[in-house]
Amino acid sequence: MLQSTVPRPSQDSAEGSARSDRALLAERYAAVRNTSMALTVGLAPEDQVIQTMPDVSPTKWHLAHTTWFLETFLLTPFAPGYEVFDPSFGYLFNSYYEAIGERHPRPARGLLSRPTVGEVGRYRAAVDEAMQAWLGGVDAPRFAAAAPILEIGLHHEQQHQELLLTDIKHVLAQNPVMPAYRAAAPAKRPQLGLDGWWDHEGGLVEIGHAGAGFAFDNESPRHRQYLPPFRLARRLVTAGQYLDFIRDGGYRRPELWLSDGWAAIKERGWAAPLYWIETEGGAYDLLTLNGRRPLDPSEPVVHVSFYEAEAFANWTGFRLPMEAEWEVVAAGRQVAGNFLDAGHYHPTGEGGHLYGDAWVWTRSAYQPYPGYRAAEGALGEYNGKFMSGQMVLRGGSCATPDGHVRATYRNFFPPDARWQFSGIRLAADV
Amino acid sequence: MLQSTVPRPSQDSAEGSARSDRALLAERYAAVRNTSMALTVGLAPEDQVIQTMPDVSPTKWHLAHTTWFLETFLLTPFAPGYEVFDPSFGYLFNSYYEAIGERHPRPARGLLSRPTVGEVGRYRAAVDEAMQAWLGGVDAPRFAAAAPILEIGLHHEQQHQELLLTDIKHVLAQNPVMPAYRAAAPAKRPQLGLDGWWDHEGGLVEIGHAGAGFAFDNESPRHRQYLPPFRLARRLVTAGQYLDFIRDGGYRRPELWLSDGWAAIKERGWAAPLYWIETEGGAYDLLTLNGRRPLDPSEPVVHVSFYEAEAFANWTGFRLPMEAEWEVVAAGRQVAGNFLDAGHYHPTGEGGHLYGDAWVWTRSAYQPYPGYRAAEGALGEYNGKFMSGQMVLRGGSCATPDGHVRATYRNFFPPDARWQFSGIRLAADV
Amino acid sequence: MLQSTVPRPSQDSAEGSARSDRALLAERYAAVRNTSMALTVGLAPEDQVIQTMPDVSPTKWHLAHTTWFLETFLLTPFAPGYEVFDPSFGYLFNSYYEAIGERHPRPARGLLSRPTVGEVGRYRAAVDEAMQAWLGGVDAPRFAAAAPILEIGLHHEQQHQELLLTDIKHVLAQNPVMPAYRAAAPAKRPQLGLDGWWDHEGGLVEIGHAGAGFAFDNESPRHRQYLPPFRLARRLVTAGQYLDFIRDGGYRRPELWLSDGWAAIKERGWAAPLYWIETEGGAYDLLTLNGRRPLDPSEPVVHVSFYEAEAFANWTGFRLPMEAEWEVVAAGRQVAGNFLDAGHYHPTGEGGHLYGDAWVWTRSAYQPYPGYRAAEGALGEYNGKFMSGQMVLRGGSCATPDGHVRATYRNFFPPDARWQFSGIRLAADV
Amino acid sequence: MLQSTVPRPSQDSAEGSARSDRALLAERYAAVRNTSMALTVGLAPEDQVIQTMPDVSPTKWHLAHTTWFLETFLLTPFAPGYEVFDPSFGYLFNSYYEAIGERHPRPARGLLSRPTVGEVGRYRAAVDEAMQAWLGGVDAPRFAAAAPILEIGLHHEQQHQELLLTDIKHVLAQNPVMPAYRAAAPAKRPQLGLDGWWDHEGGLVEIGHAGAGFAFDNESPRHRQYLPPFRLARRLVTAGQYLDFIRDGGYRRPELWLSDGWAAIKERGWAAPLYWIETEGGAYDLLTLNGRRPLDPSEPVVHVSFYEAEAFANWTGFRLPMEAEWEVVAAGRQVAGNFLDAGHYHPTGEGGHLYGDAWVWTRSAYQPYPGYRAAEGALGEYNGKFMSGQMVLRGGSCATPDGHVRATYRNFFPPDARWQFSGIRLAADV
Repeated sequence: MLQSTVPRPSQDSAEGSARSDRALLAERYAAVRNTSMALTVGLAPEDQVIQTMPDVSPTKWHLAHTTWFLETFLLTPFAPGYEVFDPSFGYLFNSYYEAIGERHPRPARGLLSRPTVGEVGRYRAAVDEAMQAWLGGVDAPRFAAAAPILEIGLHHEQQHQELLLTDIKHVLAQNPVMPAYRAAAPAKRPQLGLDGWWDHEGGLVEIGHAGAGFAFDNESPRHRQYLPPFRLARRLVTAGQYLDFIRDGGYRRPELWLSDGWAAIKERGWAAPLYWIETEGGAYDLLTLNGRRPLDPSEPVVHVSFYEAEAFANWTGFRLPMEAEWEVVAAGRQVAGNFLDAGHYHPTGEGGHLYGDAWVWTRSAYQPYPGYRAAEGALGEYNGKFMSGQMVLRGGSCATPDGHVRATYRNFFPPDARWQFSGIRLAADV
Repeated sequence: MLQSTVPRPSQDSAEGSARSDRALLAERYAAVRNTSMALTVGLAPEDQVIQTMPDVSPTKWHLAHTTWFLETFLLTPFAPGYEVFDPSFGYLFNSYYEAIGERHPRPARGLLSRPTVGEVGRYRAAVDEAMQAWLGGVDAPRFAAAAPILEIGLHHEQQHQELLLTDIKHVLAQNPVMPAYRAAAPAKRPQLGLDGWWDHEGGLVEIGHAGAGFAFDNESPRHRQYLPPFRLARRLVTAGQYLDFIRDGGYRRPELWLSDGWAAIKERGWAAPLYWIETEGGAYDLLTLNGRRPLDPSEPVVHVSFYEAEAFANWTGFRLPMEAEWEVVAAGRQVAGNFLDAGHYHPTGEGGHLYGDAWVWTRSAYQPYPGYRAAEGALGEYNGKFMSGQMVLRGGSCATPDGHVRATYRNFFPPDARWQFSGIRLAADV
Repeated sequence: MLQSTVPRPSQDSAEGSARSDRALLAERYAAVRNTSMALTVGLAPEDQVIQTMPDVSPTKWHLAHTTWFLETFLLTPFAPGYEVFDPSFGYLFNSYYEAIGERHPRPARGLLSRPTVGEVGRYRAAVDEAMQAWLGGVDAPRFAAAAPILEIGLHHEQQHQELLLTDIKHVLAQNPVMPAYRAAAPAKRPQLGLDGWWDHEGGLVEIGHAGAGFAFDNESPRHRQYLPPFRLARRLVTAGQYLDFIRDGGYRRPELWLSDGWAAIKERGWAAPLYWIETEGGAYDLLTLNGRRPLDPSEPVVHVSFYEAEAFANWTGFRLPMEAEWEVVAAGRQVAGNFLDAGHYHPTGEGGHLYGDAWVWTRSAYQPYPGYRAAEGALGEYNGKFMSGQMVLRGGSCATPDGHVRATYRNFFPPDARWQFSGIRLAADV
Repeated sequence: MLQSTVPRPSQDSAEGSARSDRALLAERYAAVRNTSMALTVGLAPEDQVIQTMPDVSPTKWHLAHTTWFLETFLLTPFAPGYEVFDPSFGYLFNSYYEAIGERHPRPARGLLSRPTVGEVGRYRAAVDEAMQAWLGGVDAPRFAAAAPILEIGLHHEQQHQELLLTDIKHVLAQNPVMPAYRAAAPAKRPQLGLDGWWDHEGGLVEIGHAGAGFAFDNESPRHRQYLPPFRLARRLVTAGQYLDFIRDGGYRRPELWLSDGWAAIKERGWAAPLYWIETEGGAYDLLTLNGRRPLDPSEPVVHVSFYEAEAFANWTGFRLPMEAEWEVVAAGRQVAGNFLDAGHYHPTGEGGHLYGDAWVWTRSAYQPYPGYRAAEGALGEYNGKFMSGQMVLRGGSCATPDGHVRATYRNFFPPDARWQFSGIRLAADV
């Protein structure tokens, strides 16, 4: 899943000076923090407290955990005299930082009725007030030391904004009543016309982060790879194309599946993507954050696991891209597409963008880049500790905050995860 | 667990005429229903929605289920023109009545954030209003047919009042912060002085319900049993006595335990009753509905399983009573003791009563009485369906509403259940 | 399951003198021990080593465990100078005697390839030789002390003979090839003619063991019970009658089942007794120790759980007997029927006997009799430790050695056990 | 685990003509098949039938499955008139070829007592006789078509020879008696003197199979990769070095572990490699195929999982190699080392070879090479179906038959597998 990692030291002094502008940072801080709260408008306290599977965290946990992160890694070490809001929160809202101490077990997050949603709101307000006061008064050397961590804190909160949405989607979907998260946005259905490929001649390329701008450390170091020529689809796979796969017996043909994938769909009884509800005659409804509605064949398919993406690709005769392939195609392009800020909460497929709508599964296992070394300290303690058993996804989704992703950004999930906005973009050898 | 069952037909016309007094019944209705709501005062919505183990139901589920019971078995069949509050509630709040149709699975009750606590409150208000209107206007024949079912509905709600308390105790106990349910009641600690036994000469006795007054059908028919002479302890076993058992290696000596009990404590790592928290030096704190406090050796021990009760009894050289033994001793005595209405929410041990404080585990498996036959229809469909794998408990507890139990009342739980107020009263052969 | 327990002290000196006849005892010893080995004729070593579910023990384990029992409780304490055959066997072949020390876990019995079947055979031969030598030379006082334990040892071995058969039946049944244990015995199919009931007027009766003859201690003390009038079926329920139950939707009607039973058949997908194989058109084959063959509607049904027996009884409108009811009917009758020695290895239903063919499930939970107290020492340590969560069966089966059961004999298994020869005999109120 | 895959078509006619020499092939056939049987000398039938964990297959299953492979893919399609030895074996001994039909579930292989070891021996003899007859008489075109499949059949059998050994090691290790597989070989303990590194300057390299000689298809196509400069250790990590890791708290320091690895060691209680038995004072015995003996600090460590290898590497400050790094170092070297044929059944560490002794875990996930495409038909149906969730190992072990591995050979197992002879060879950036 999304894991924050330490930033590389900036080598660009101009960028450093831009970042040292506290007023701008204070403004960004307020914007990011307010976005989190805005996402909870319309949710009852009852919605925000339950946990419907171990992967899901309650809404109020996201709100509290991101706050704890700022309190722990910024206010406590950098704001003299700051007193923690509630000492018990260190135990309750630490996610996985073993160096910070014991923590409440993840699958038990839904057993906590207290602190209540209201108390978490007060916690956020108190930390925000302390943060803004600190930003207004901190001296330059301290600010220089703390700013990179604040960058992480804000990117970290953006990651949790996406998780907050995919988690609340799962929560509401468990209820037979199927309440909508938000009233349906103005119908903006995809009008998929242009198909076709981006071609790339391969050769010795470079991928990974270098130079100015924020990046997580799993994007470094920038390094060379040799790629054969390939092509990458301009469009995401649509629900209609995926429906053809289903109707062609896709879930009943073992030869299309990885062995682990075949075992997974048998054991769990999967026969369609998550949130597809079969109605009569082989038709499907779709459960979205705007409620239940008929499936639109022209919209991008989402909520598929890596196993399903791989089987679908095998069925087409094409294949999934490697992460380096996606990145070299994306490298020169503008980061634009259907992100969280558009307010659709669902892919539209419009515009044929490489970014947004749906994270695309790659055929690349999540591994360290050559020369990658874990950083020191609690924030860096576990930079690479999730580099096993997971697959890389690229490009961001309709739940990713605008400005959060980039060409080098590596998201990762286990191959059976389906509750994220994960879709399929095909690739091919040339 | 507590299961409501159909009532015997009343053979006493005087009692019948008393029960036909609608004003009195309307008054009792209001009292019982208000008690349920009063129990939730001080709970946050967040407290009322989560489920901390499969046995536990959320508070709002109890509030809604008891309301659904009245709506389904009274308003729908007996109040012409009544329209159900929300048709989806039939699925959500049916507990186990298969004849009534499909139902939401019990272990998933904590996955439901909607209806919210507020909506459940509105549901209760609407049903209460309809019930009072119906009681005011119903004709005599219809009332006569419905009154026995209303009796069940009220007793059923009382059973859920006890469960609501023991469930919320479990919910709050999962939180490392350990919030109290209610501020501590005025300290009313037990002053155990009188020990000793009630002696009984045995012989051919009769147990079970007959005659006037309400009873569940598992208390019938009244029948004969032959008992050897025995004695029954006047006092419940105290926490201090149980502590002696622990300190004497009680949980490490297989010869004291039933084979299933030994396996259970090994597998679950039990080394003390539920809600005992070991502090330093072998001392214990106790988690109560009034919060955490040091264990008082003179209070009755509660939250033990049947296995622990049996092992403790073996350690003493005495034994647990049979349910018939408890009943013949109780038969002539006043139903008095520390019940829910006293507001202690914890055993006090005062007064040496046979009732209240803690349900006592008997050595009797929960079996049908000779001649017992299940009744017809949905309410009676499953009268006996829990008569396997469970043990009988007798006497009521500090969470049992006053007036709810009697000498013939049979409570029952699986031998490993600990989250009820279950304690130990010893017996002996003479 | 079958558990050996300590004998009551004999109160009858004549019986005592009979038992002190060493020659007779040596003869019985040889007969019982040879029967065990005779049961393995035709089995490959491979058949005797595997374990197909936790309840099942490998054949060679039964052969070794019964030998270890004799070595541990007789030769070691009573035969001066005896040296144990292999010290590691104490760990490997102790079943559940915690006082004797650590032991190999039951579900792991199938992980042991060594000692081999041949080595176990040598172990048996060595212990038998030592036992016969000891019987020939032991002095009178020592013999008097040891003889009751030898009685237990032989009854214990008889119990394991039945288990050996039901276990090997389960082992062979897992193999898709379905090998037969023994070539089909001469077809001796039931000719069920006489139906009807044994009537009993009830009243104050006595059950349990007293007086001369061997009995396990769970059969004591003899005590009074009060029984209403009842009747007990003269015939076991047949496969054809059970088939009617199936065809009438017996496994799909929740109202017929105990709640735990309904959960069990749903979870495990049970829709017929164990070893019934559905063929075309709703017909069934039966897997027997003589191989696979068509089901005969007139043979007694076996391999049903208590849950299935109870549901069947509910379907008929009759009920299962209480154990006291079975015993008072059996008390005056000759112990005769289709036992192991007949060599059928399957019920025949011939003759309308109360004993043999199939153990019958009673509606009685396995509880201690009033006044029952566990004996001292390793053999008695756990006399009552299985008295929880199990139901009593009565009467013996086609796999029970002749002479092993009696009117007071109590067998017991959990309510979901099906791999024993367990059947149904109905009872009714009068 | 080891999975056979289809061969690339040979491009070298000289090699092709060599392979067409039937006499040579018949000789190799006999040698490989005899080696399998020779590995079972000294095993009792009881040893060969049990299954001690789902990963383990019984010895007799290996013997039968490899025979079924030859019968199914060679005799049936290529030997006219051949009749299968036993039609039920197709179901019992198919491992995972879904195109061939239904098959017996893998975790249930230990439930099969029949066919017995003797019957499997007769099966092997019959197939061997038919194969030799066929090799003697087949016409040239048919031989040309069948020869590549026979190549696979023999390599497949060699893979199972290694598994047979690691599986029987696991079987015998479950027995508290700890029998030895073979009497101890003449003590050939490692004399580790030369340490140091092989240096490589990196750059654009080629890996993968091309040209003459047999290879599995997962080794193709040969392709380019770009490598930074690196070095590879000349010696395997020793038991003594691993012991230092343990004593330095290696298993108690989360910062050294992958998140999944930390969870795995906590859940399973791992605190040392498999088959290490802690004795007093922090010393260890080792369970080997030659029995139990004290650990020798100078021998290579084996039976570690990928997780443990990765944590150990982190502790040293070095890292595990990528598979391409191992291959380019190995490419020019002779395939020599301590293989199965040496008869040690355990690593010696002698000679500082790159091959043999222990498979080394790489940091490379098992992924398809660029351009890899699955072949057609049953043999090729699943070439890539295991390419998810597993890590690559390189180099062969003391249980790998001589001549079976090569520089391009890719072995693969899940990151928690420990029962193979898997060890550690460090790498470093330069």
